[in-house]
Amino acid sequence: MIELTLIGIGTGNPGHVTLQAVESMRGADLVLIPLKGGDKADLAGLRRHICHTHLQGTATRIAEFDLPLRDAGDPDYQGGVARWHDAIADAWESAIRAHLPAVSGRVALLVWGDPSLYDSSLRIANRLETRMALATRVIPGITAIQALCAAHAMPLNRIGAPVQITTGRRLRDHGWPEAADTVVVMLDGGCAFRSLPPQGIHIWWGAFLGMAEEITCAGPLAEAGPRIERLRAQARADHGWIMDIYLLRRG
Amino acid sequence: MIELTLIGIGTGNPGHVTLQAVESMRGADLVLIPLKGGDKADLAGLRRHICHTHLQGTATRIAEFDLPLRDAGDPDYQGGVARWHDAIADAWESAIRAHLPAVSGRVALLVWGDPSLYDSSLRIANRLETRMALATRVIPGITAIQALCAAHAMPLNRIGAPVQITTGRRLRDHGWPEAADTVVVMLDGGCAFRSLPPQGIHIWWGAFLGMAEEITCAGPLAEAGPRIERLRAQARADHGWIMDIYLLRRG
Ligand SMILES: C[S@@+](CC[C@H](N)C(=O)[O-])C[C@H]1O[C@@H](n2cnc3c(N)ncnc32)[C@H](O)[C@@H]1O
Ligand SMILES: C[S@@+](CC[C@H](N)C(=O)[O-])C[C@H]1O[C@@H](n2cnc3c(N)ncnc32)[C@H](O)[C@@H]1O
Repeated sequence: MIELTLIGIGTGNPGHVTLQAVESMRGADLVLIPLKGGDKADLAGLRRHICHTHLQGTATRIAEFDLPLRDAGDPDYQGGVARWHDAIADAWESAIRAHLPAVSGRVALLVWGDPSLYDSSLRIANRLETRMALATRVIPGITAIQALCAAHAMPLNRIGAPVQITTGRRLRDHGWPEAADTVVVMLDGGCAFRSLPPQGIHIWWGAFLGMAEEITCAGPLAEAGPRIERLRAQARADHGWIMDIYLLRRG
Repeated sequence: MIELTLIGIGTGNPGHVTLQAVESMRGADLVLIPLKGGDKADLAGLRRHICHTHLQGTATRIAEFDLPLRDAGDPDYQGGVARWHDAIADAWESAIRAHLPAVSGRVALLVWGDPSLYDSSLRIANRLETRMALATRVIPGITAIQALCAAHAMPLNRIGAPVQITTGRRLRDHGWPEAADTVVVMLDGGCAFRSLPPQGIHIWWGAFLGMAEEITCAGPLAEAGPRIERLRAQARADHGWIMDIYLLRRG
């Protein structure tokens, strides 16, 4: 029996790691570190750093494995994602069988942010459950939403009011989601806020939140929007990649 | 100059505390612990436990102070909340001036969950900024949303899909919020899910998440709803109070 623990590690600040996460890593027989290769090597670097800091004096082994890449050109979005998750499940399975040949023990996987938020690890664990005796546990982590609000020292919600969490793609394709005056946008490959008429909207933006490279910017969308576009393009050019999130509030 | 740090401590599990939170507490001159009195004494108990565990060997002082109660009967909701926040700001101010008469130093306040989510600490800090030289920082914490998803080992969102965070009051008064098939409901004094036609809705519920008293229940709303009502009434009777949250998904 494999006991798989998906451990949320926060969004790049080693201090986001919880005491429960440390304890769970130290109790594992094996920690899996996915390598995305290329530009995002810093992300594997953080995971390695966290392991080296917290696994001192334990017998826990660390196994790195190559994460298959998603075919971003696949015209069938849902099907492409499903095939990609299948391929990741294959990679997890090989790594587990290679390092724990008896297919028994405690395996930990360090997940960026929180495992419940725009992350595929739980869906991949569900696939593995059909291939081996496996029980999945989750250790919650700090999300990019918390990191954004903390960086701006601001509340997520107005008093007693709702909040919509959505993606850049949906904001671009569907406009402002009704029923909420606060919208958090994640997974935005571009600057989807450009698709909104900016009047009466305020934006709070952050990239590389919690990391040494952290950048933030905020203001009325009409003025801050173009500034964010420039900051984002520059940061992306400097680092070769970017991870950003923003909150929009209207009215 | 007062440097005020609002530290998210998670939702009741001492293991939710982050390494950054520990470091920040240990660097403080003064930690403020609000006492709500009465039934919720366990909450101050957790904060005390966290302080005693992590402040060993430091010169950090701990100050408990009585939190004013909100006049729940006030017919003017927004005005009542504003007056309550003013009264809390008075309590913070008195505690700070009593323990740091030079009005200088590092003050930490331990906030339930994350300081950005349905919490008034940031708004109260803003009031204090008009009364003394004060800079506010935030250390993010695990929210009840993360604790709920972790307890059920489930994703918050469907793939690439949005999520609405709302309150029991809004769900009851406005029904299902359009533009999202996943709704997280917090601050529900009753069982607002009863106001929805249950067909096609699934619920994942949790009370006292992360705490020794943790209870969870999930299933199709038509069947699980009545079960949750009974569990909730029983738990509330047993403990004298309850803190619960749920996720609804349709379609
Ligand atoms: C695949 S999702 C993973 C989210 C993660 N599970 C969490 O809990 O935050 C990646 C998206 O999260 C946001 N994100 C994650 N880390 C971030 C960071 N350090 N700074 C800014 N945005 C971040 C960005 O919107 C990015 O597109
Ligand atoms: C005033 S809000 C504070 C939320 C907190 N700042 C957070 O980040 O989770 C209180 C609401 O949070 C939810 N909540 C907080 N802690 C909880 C727990 N341990 N179990 C279940 N629900 C909880 C409940 O919906 C409760 O009504």
